[in-house]
Amino acid sequence: MTTPRSWLAGADDSPFGVHNLPYGVFTAADRPGVRRIGVRIGESVLDAGAAARAVGEPSVLLDADTLNPLLAAGRPVWTEVRTALTRWLTDESHRAALSPLLLPLAEVELHLPFEVADYVDFYASEHHATNLGRIFRPGSEPLTPNWKHLPIGYHGRAGTVVVSGTPVIRPQGQRKAPTDAVPSFGPTRRLDIEAEVGFVVGAPSVLGTPVTLDRFREHVFGVCLVNDWSARDIQAWEYVPLGPFLGKSFATSVSPWIVPLDALEQARVTPPARDVEPLPYLDDRGGEPWGLDLALEVRLNGHPVSRPPFASMYWTAAQQLTHMTVNGASLRTGDFFASGTISGPEPETRGALIELTWNGEEPLKLPDGTTRTFLEDGDEVTITATAPGPDGTVVGFGEVTGRVTP
Amino acid sequence: MTTPRSWLAGADDSPFGVHNLPYGVFTAADRPGVRRIGVRIGESVLDAGAAARAVGEPSVLLDADTLNPLLAAGRPVWTEVRTALTRWLTDESHRAALSPLLLPLAEVELHLPFEVADYVDFYASEHHATNLGRIFRPGSEPLTPNWKHLPIGYHGRAGTVVVSGTPVIRPQGQRKAPTDAVPSFGPTRRLDIEAEVGFVVGAPSVLGTPVTLDRFREHVFGVCLVNDWSARDIQAWEYVPLGPFLGKSFATSVSPWIVPLDALEQARVTPPARDVEPLPYLDDRGGEPWGLDLALEVRLNGHPVSRPPFASMYWTAAQQLTHMTVNGASLRTGDFFASGTISGPEPETRGALIELTWNGEEPLKLPDGTTRTFLEDGDEVTITATAPGPDGTVVGFGEVTGRVTP
Repeated sequence: MTTPRSWLAGADDSPFGVHNLPYGVFTAADRPGVRRIGVRIGESVLDAGAAARAVGEPSVLLDADTLNPLLAAGRPVWTEVRTALTRWLTDESHRAALSPLLLPLAEVELHLPFEVADYVDFYASEHHATNLGRIFRPGSEPLTPNWKHLPIGYHGRAGTVVVSGTPVIRPQGQRKAPTDAVPSFGPTRRLDIEAEVGFVVGAPSVLGTPVTLDRFREHVFGVCLVNDWSARDIQAWEYVPLGPFLGKSFATSVSPWIVPLDALEQARVTPPARDVEPLPYLDDRGGEPWGLDLALEVRLNGHPVSRPPFASMYWTAAQQLTHMTVNGASLRTGDFFASGTISGPEPETRGALIELTWNGEEPLKLPDGTTRTFLEDGDEVTITATAPGPDGTVVGFGEVTGRVTP
Repeated sequence: MTTPRSWLAGADDSPFGVHNLPYGVFTAADRPGVRRIGVRIGESVLDAGAAARAVGEPSVLLDADTLNPLLAAGRPVWTEVRTALTRWLTDESHRAALSPLLLPLAEVELHLPFEVADYVDFYASEHHATNLGRIFRPGSEPLTPNWKHLPIGYHGRAGTVVVSGTPVIRPQGQRKAPTDAVPSFGPTRRLDIEAEVGFVVGAPSVLGTPVTLDRFREHVFGVCLVNDWSARDIQAWEYVPLGPFLGKSFATSVSPWIVPLDALEQARVTPPARDVEPLPYLDDRGGEPWGLDLALEVRLNGHPVSRPPFASMYWTAAQQLTHMTVNGASLRTGDFFASGTISGPEPETRGALIELTWNGEEPLKLPDGTTRTFLEDGDEVTITATAPGPDGTVVGFGEVTGRVTP
């Protein structure tokens, strides 16, 4: 099957052709302060609610200030809306009506596209977990005994998930080096990044009923990029025994475009071989593979510093969703879960500075002549990603970016 | 100053007189399915929105299906609304108009009174943390080195906070005893309770701006009871290194009445002496004390099994709120934080079965001749509490209850 072509010149040769069609929420000068759902096509944003009205189709889910009503509608409606958007943007007869509803990307402001219900962060990269084990617990087994039996995760702060571009204020807090007698208080000295991929839950589930692996598509709407900023010194002092809290809760940045799961069919890959037999509820052999071949790039002040390969993740998002609900915990529309830092086997594919600089012992040299162990005020971190699309196309994720302010 | 008396006979001699006036959300047969804000007075519930209309005062914040609009309005409005409610219920001239708007408590159904934004659970009882340290890490220091320097907390699942009376379905999951070679899967064998007190955040705060100790009243609207159900075997296997997750996320029950902070002035006490000097941002000496003298009782199938004293908590809710935001994390309306299990120094004041039965080694004998280590299917747990009110009155919290189902 050949993917239909858009009537918008150039769109299909970009990572944002009709094979992608990610959703976001924007404001623009023509209606100041009014948040609207937009769909990215090429370097333009289609005002989706206005487009539905212009072609005389139902607009109610697209006439909203967040994606939540659309998310709540569930898989059959997501397919219907995507089919409609594809038709609008490929059928030449709609060109005249819809062209005025395309806004240049550069002229819109993008917002957090959905209201986050619960936010869960996983820890699914074997290379990342192994590196951190080696750094923090030298001399003992780098992976904890549970690591290959279950996708380890914890709840993060939903209220501080922010859209790309939001300044990241250097957090203050308690930190105590092993050689200090007592903790001191002040701005973190070890501000780090975590390059991750995030999954947006649309359809809710019922309390007491686990979501099995084969129902992943029914519940997950789409995918975005995540930078889960971390203050390593605050985290190291606080995290025993109940896990990370203030070392993470000050900000989690997400990219503004939610790429529909439907746009990632060609990106699906078999996850790496597991060397421990998973319990039946997590066993994905024989089902649909939900490894995803996303190629990430991390740039620090414009310089590429890492290329984390999402296909290397030990646990898939489907396994994470199933694990998260196996105790009967319910899903709500707007639940959001992230993969955990993505690190591949090679040093230049590690998704956090603590690994890239080996706990600060091996500073990164940047092309501008400076070096970094952790982030300095004014530093800007940008994460981008692409995935294979149909017929040789590329699916773009856009970027998640943030600048550190004092 | 003498507290005004209600025109409703008997109300002021109950723990729900005009000195209390907790808020909830109810439905009743006269308007099936319509959630309304109710204020408890004696054994009745006042339909608050209808009451405002009946006396010709603004009703908009009380005409809602959750408390969230009222929560968002902030302290000056909370005072105004409480003053108005007190006037309505004490001024004899309103009796005729308002009497028809009082529904018998037994005839209403109570619902989760607010939409939970983020849920944070603390770990603020020194006796509880010490007991758990002794049970889980015998031979080493029972408290971790950070415990007396900061109120340890973690994010829980907001989407599974449920109202009192919701059945608690025994969760399944992975558990592995130290003697097992590999984990097994099935229903938890060690289902426990945690008797806690919860705090409801009303007024939001700005990202990047910590909420200092002296601003506690501006942000916290009220207080309720919490049972943070825990599956100890699931928790023990999963919690290293990122903290509790599925061992807690299946259900957190809360009492349906939110007692206004204003009703607890007489309950304020100085917290226990701290034997470690707190960092300045947590130092509450010289400010308002936010220890609270709440006397809890835990009943298992109707039999009292524990009487946890909230006044014994090492860290106060004001210190918890300040700590939670010191890194710049913002508050949202509906944020909810709980104290952690409340255990006093005496064995009969411990707030969890794992302590009451010392990890199952000393089963509880119930008056019906049965014994318990952890909860069995069909068991019902109820937590109640009272606090001192003005002029010798008692402030009631009602109860949080839940029955275990298979």
